[in-house]
Amino acid sequence: MSVPAQLGVGLISVGWMGRLHSRAYLAAAHHYPELAARATLVMAADPDEGGRQHAADALGYRQTTADYRDVLANPDVDIVSICSPNFLHHEIALATIAAGKPFWIEKPMGRGVRESSEIARGAATRGLVTSVGFNYRHAPAIAHARRLVREGAIGTVTNVRVAFMADYSADPSGALTWRFQRDRAGSGVLGDLLSHGADLAQFVVGRITSVTAMTETFIAERPLPRANAASHFSKGDDSDPKGLVENEDYAALLARFDGGAVGVLESSRVAVGPRAEYALEVYGTKGSLRWDFQRMNELQLADGGSGYRTMMMAPDNGEFARFQPGAGTGMGFDDLKTIEAYLFLRSVLENRQLAPSAADAWSAAEVVDAAVRSAASGKWVDVP
Amino acid sequence: MSVPAQLGVGLISVGWMGRLHSRAYLAAAHHYPELAARATLVMAADPDEGGRQHAADALGYRQTTADYRDVLANPDVDIVSICSPNFLHHEIALATIAAGKPFWIEKPMGRGVRESSEIARGAATRGLVTSVGFNYRHAPAIAHARRLVREGAIGTVTNVRVAFMADYSADPSGALTWRFQRDRAGSGVLGDLLSHGADLAQFVVGRITSVTAMTETFIAERPLPRANAASHFSKGDDSDPKGLVENEDYAALLARFDGGAVGVLESSRVAVGPRAEYALEVYGTKGSLRWDFQRMNELQLADGGSGYRTMMMAPDNGEFARFQPGAGTGMGFDDLKTIEAYLFLRSVLENRQLAPSAADAWSAAEVVDAAVRSAASGKWVDVP
Amino acid sequence: MSVPAQLGVGLISVGWMGRLHSRAYLAAAHHYPELAARATLVMAADPDEGGRQHAADALGYRQTTADYRDVLANPDVDIVSICSPNFLHHEIALATIAAGKPFWIEKPMGRGVRESSEIARGAATRGLVTSVGFNYRHAPAIAHARRLVREGAIGTVTNVRVAFMADYSADPSGALTWRFQRDRAGSGVLGDLLSHGADLAQFVVGRITSVTAMTETFIAERPLPRANAASHFSKGDDSDPKGLVENEDYAALLARFDGGAVGVLESSRVAVGPRAEYALEVYGTKGSLRWDFQRMNELQLADGGSGYRTMMMAPDNGEFARFQPGAGTGMGFDDLKTIEAYLFLRSVLENRQLAPSAADAWSAAEVVDAAVRSAASGKWVDVP
Amino acid sequence: MSVPAQLGVGLISVGWMGRLHSRAYLAAAHHYPELAARATLVMAADPDEGGRQHAADALGYRQTTADYRDVLANPDVDIVSICSPNFLHHEIALATIAAGKPFWIEKPMGRGVRESSEIARGAATRGLVTSVGFNYRHAPAIAHARRLVREGAIGTVTNVRVAFMADYSADPSGALTWRFQRDRAGSGVLGDLLSHGADLAQFVVGRITSVTAMTETFIAERPLPRANAASHFSKGDDSDPKGLVENEDYAALLARFDGGAVGVLESSRVAVGPRAEYALEVYGTKGSLRWDFQRMNELQLADGGSGYRTMMMAPDNGEFARFQPGAGTGMGFDDLKTIEAYLFLRSVLENRQLAPSAADAWSAAEVVDAAVRSAASGKWVDVP
Repeated sequence: MSVPAQLGVGLISVGWMGRLHSRAYLAAAHHYPELAARATLVMAADPDEGGRQHAADALGYRQTTADYRDVLANPDVDIVSICSPNFLHHEIALATIAAGKPFWIEKPMGRGVRESSEIARGAATRGLVTSVGFNYRHAPAIAHARRLVREGAIGTVTNVRVAFMADYSADPSGALTWRFQRDRAGSGVLGDLLSHGADLAQFVVGRITSVTAMTETFIAERPLPRANAASHFSKGDDSDPKGLVENEDYAALLARFDGGAVGVLESSRVAVGPRAEYALEVYGTKGSLRWDFQRMNELQLADGGSGYRTMMMAPDNGEFARFQPGAGTGMGFDDLKTIEAYLFLRSVLENRQLAPSAADAWSAAEVVDAAVRSAASGKWVDVP
Repeated sequence: MSVPAQLGVGLISVGWMGRLHSRAYLAAAHHYPELAARATLVMAADPDEGGRQHAADALGYRQTTADYRDVLANPDVDIVSICSPNFLHHEIALATIAAGKPFWIEKPMGRGVRESSEIARGAATRGLVTSVGFNYRHAPAIAHARRLVREGAIGTVTNVRVAFMADYSADPSGALTWRFQRDRAGSGVLGDLLSHGADLAQFVVGRITSVTAMTETFIAERPLPRANAASHFSKGDDSDPKGLVENEDYAALLARFDGGAVGVLESSRVAVGPRAEYALEVYGTKGSLRWDFQRMNELQLADGGSGYRTMMMAPDNGEFARFQPGAGTGMGFDDLKTIEAYLFLRSVLENRQLAPSAADAWSAAEVVDAAVRSAASGKWVDVP
Repeated sequence: MSVPAQLGVGLISVGWMGRLHSRAYLAAAHHYPELAARATLVMAADPDEGGRQHAADALGYRQTTADYRDVLANPDVDIVSICSPNFLHHEIALATIAAGKPFWIEKPMGRGVRESSEIARGAATRGLVTSVGFNYRHAPAIAHARRLVREGAIGTVTNVRVAFMADYSADPSGALTWRFQRDRAGSGVLGDLLSHGADLAQFVVGRITSVTAMTETFIAERPLPRANAASHFSKGDDSDPKGLVENEDYAALLARFDGGAVGVLESSRVAVGPRAEYALEVYGTKGSLRWDFQRMNELQLADGGSGYRTMMMAPDNGEFARFQPGAGTGMGFDDLKTIEAYLFLRSVLENRQLAPSAADAWSAAEVVDAAVRSAASGKWVDVP
Repeated sequence: MSVPAQLGVGLISVGWMGRLHSRAYLAAAHHYPELAARATLVMAADPDEGGRQHAADALGYRQTTADYRDVLANPDVDIVSICSPNFLHHEIALATIAAGKPFWIEKPMGRGVRESSEIARGAATRGLVTSVGFNYRHAPAIAHARRLVREGAIGTVTNVRVAFMADYSADPSGALTWRFQRDRAGSGVLGDLLSHGADLAQFVVGRITSVTAMTETFIAERPLPRANAASHFSKGDDSDPKGLVENEDYAALLARFDGGAVGVLESSRVAVGPRAEYALEVYGTKGSLRWDFQRMNELQLADGGSGYRTMMMAPDNGEFARFQPGAGTGMGFDDLKTIEAYLFLRSVLENRQLAPSAADAWSAAEVVDAAVRSAASGKWVDVP
């Protein structure tokens, strides 16, 4: 075998997701040794010294910088991971497109449908392949669910339930960071979580064509972050001054899908009980199936009238065989990112767009946007 | 102890529910020996000879008749159970009111909000106590859930999920009986099943004030019943002529509750997988709880951030102690009817209305009616 | 139809089980109307005034007495329910046999294998049909499990797990009642709970032929009951004098079955967590199945390698159809006793022994006895 | 920060486990950046060309060889991973000890207690730190369970249940590879799987002091492997000649622990239903807890009488925080190996033995050996 070619990676923002992207590029080589090129960690940008240090020392980036533009300008950087706070996605993605580099971007890709569409269309115009962090798609159980649906194992799909219930903002003493500000975050749980749910539903069932929605902000105000509080996991206390939460904690949608199915989509970032319960249920004329991210290695399948079978994912389901030798030995969340990295690398190497791409993020943003408009008008809104 | 007084029972229609009412009256004396009167099975009406025979031989009714008016006219009949097909409820209930007899009626009480309101208002005008078959209310787990909510164990209620998924009409070869006809059944799954869900949500959380809804008929046509097919469990085959299903197989609602909570209610009679999965989930600022009729002796409670506890119902939950001596030994569905009978008998004996009554059925009918109107208009509709 | 014949019931001891037997006799007529005779509650014996009063007022016995011999001598009593404390079973059963009356006896039938064998052999000698309270057998899921095993759905049975974990004696302040005394109760959890498990395993798989066992008493002493404490649910406190618990809280067995299967049986009366988790698991060469009394309407079946299906019991499973019209609507514990009553009544009416009988109780007592001997010797012991 | 020191890794055998060790060494640097040295993949040995190629191309080893002795002789190799088939463990481990290199060895460490003790004592004599692949220990739920037990959250431990049920040999057409031969594999499921369970029980509860055991071989013969069949996942068919399986498919033990607790341990490699259901249950006087590898991110805790709470592991449980930012986002099996690599690297760098080590493997081998002897004698056997 010839020495593999190198694909130089530039990383923008070294937070949780930036670290995960970096590890995923490296892991892809282990799990997909047939890839025609190895990713090499070239340059990482972060305004924060600690982030840069972690990139150099723990992750092994050759160079670091405080300015993401250095990454885009670096001739050794072939591909870019955009893991910055959401409100910078649009600016950075457009600059990356201008630099002519394929990119893998976290979601929500933009603060709204305008930003998302500009990114998706910009990349398409330049002929750049992209990837977007719709990681739940890559769970073998989701791949298997999609296959079962396409093969007709549950008949014609009639209705879908998506319920993404999380507690990451459930503590009312959590500080009023940018996530709760409309101008910086755009929508709240709709963009952050329900967009994942909408993507899964569209991935497995088909396009959402119209929605009617309801949104609520259950925790109306939160402590203002203190001057030195960097993280949005920082907590306030009762004596802290408070500010208004500007986007929604909870959203619920009724939806219609292309092809006649209907659905209910619901999401909360302030639920107390479920931790990261991201559930998809698909009902058809001959059966139904259920998945929950908290038990991501399982798929519940009723392919007839006599109850749900709990299937542990196995080597013949999705990408499972690349990770574990037998059913019951579980994959973890990070493995989903390795699959995502692999698909991105393949897209780049083969110069053909594998899913999910910026176009999928745009599509999910349209669902979110329609939900926002419907919540304001009280009416059904078509998803363009 | 003096010889207990007798309350003479008249039964109208000896189907599954009629038999269950009869057994429940008798069982109430065993589980609630302090009741000041015993129910005596006096007279049962059924147009069908087999039903009458079962009433006499197995249940022990003293008299039987083909004409329900005989029951109402019988001076030994003090209280009446109305278990006929839904399309006769209105006529029979009004006749029972005219006869001045308290009654226990199955649901949906009427084919629509008009019939339901006439029954509820008629009984109120005559000062008659009533009971309605919202049996799921009586599960000790629901009683306990309601108490937990009222005591603030989960904080302020923010959102509710009701999902009543059944398969009783999932077989497309099931004959086109009266259940599928709008003039005889009124609505479909909305009245039959979602009304139960709406009642539970209102019982535990509070009044639903507005809804937006979507309904679907997934199995558009069914075989016409053959001449000799008595039951709506009868099956057709491919050669049978077919007719159109006139009411909905599936409904989904977004709802707003008095007091600020919101909710999603969903129901299907044609789901394949769940058998009688009637689930209620209530989320609050400090916790959440979950119940499913299929595991009716359990309540899932998260009263903090660290996950759901599976509580087996125990003697201190609702009416459990009347039925079983210790947690883990399960009550059955029929026991819920015994509680319902007990509450009805107590209402009669004390001449004060315990819940659930015809007024609750009317309230649920208003939710159903608002949903029907919303599904037609695509707009939010207030529940009167 | 002719007026049904009467079978006069005599009840000995009006505690929880006595009341349940009484209700079950009556309910049998409702669920099995084809029975050629109706049970009539003739006479109940209880040394306690309250018990007698409940028998008369709530249950409807015509006569009551403090002396069980009056029941046996009563010519209107055709059949007898023996629900006394265990330490009286032997005396009463032998007297009942002497009186020539078929009986339904609760378990453990005797305080040891000698008492059990004398009862079983006595009844056989007199040609009396009997029934014994192995109620878990009657769960439709157990009936279905047995049928699946016999039909080969899981291949050849290889190994069995029985784990009956309860908390009814878990509170160390529970008083030292007769249950904890060797001369009155015999063994502890072995007779009380594990005997049920052994019966289920033998019912589904086959005869246990040898065991090796280990027993433990985790709560070595308990408060002596106060003079006025009637119930064994009475609690002591720290100042109460204590006495030694004389029988085992916990037992575990390795077992060999006729036909080559092996098994592990385990039971605790002092577990904290499970309430009445009575679990049976059967593994075979082609599949396996699992049942837990706490979810008695469900059966887990893996009939191949791809995971367990949760089957809600349905009308075609065991006696389910006699109780509920469709899957998902649950039976309760009391319904199992109704089935038990029905089988006893049928045995009497047809004068042929249906299972479970005193012979099955004797068989389970042999397993318990072998376990006791093995726990003492540390060796494998054959079950005669 | 200074350039980190390097620890040169030598790998012996490039199968599933060898690959996993290699990735784990690299991942340890990402998840534990504070480690004072980086592992560098120096040399991999495998008799198979494909294994060597994978080591070089996918894993990035600098050198490869067919002879493991080259690895031990390589001066750049500081530490060794022994991932060969079990029957070579003893020879290779002793050679590694002779070479004076710390090693991480997979389990079962030896084919019996003699081999295991020689390895453990040899390493101790030479003062070499070791690690052994008892990977389940590292699950955050197990770490949390152990902590809860030590803090008294469930009171005094009374009894333990270990049930490790797998299906990896359930197919009777699976070829008769070395795993089924006593001279090459030693015991069957006892060494392969139950040893893990014994280790978990000892890790959480304490030392096992005596056992009585029963073993069975349910699939008595298997097709002889064909000449060209390398893998033990190869299948035969009915026409293939068959040979006898020489070690056990199933084992069950009763056990006594230091400190008074008792337990039941059970394991099967031929169960059909569970895939890799490796369950530990610990009961105490105040509560109990349950874990299953198939849902490794969950812990069931009953810290009182009101039922089990399903806790999703969270950043404050074990090493979870090194892998995921919040509860509900799951770790995978490979992450457990990363923790194992980290502990081994720390042991080496700090030159002090962290657990689990060869001594723990020896201890588990003693339990297995006692079980083998007890199964032969039918008596209780002390574990030395």
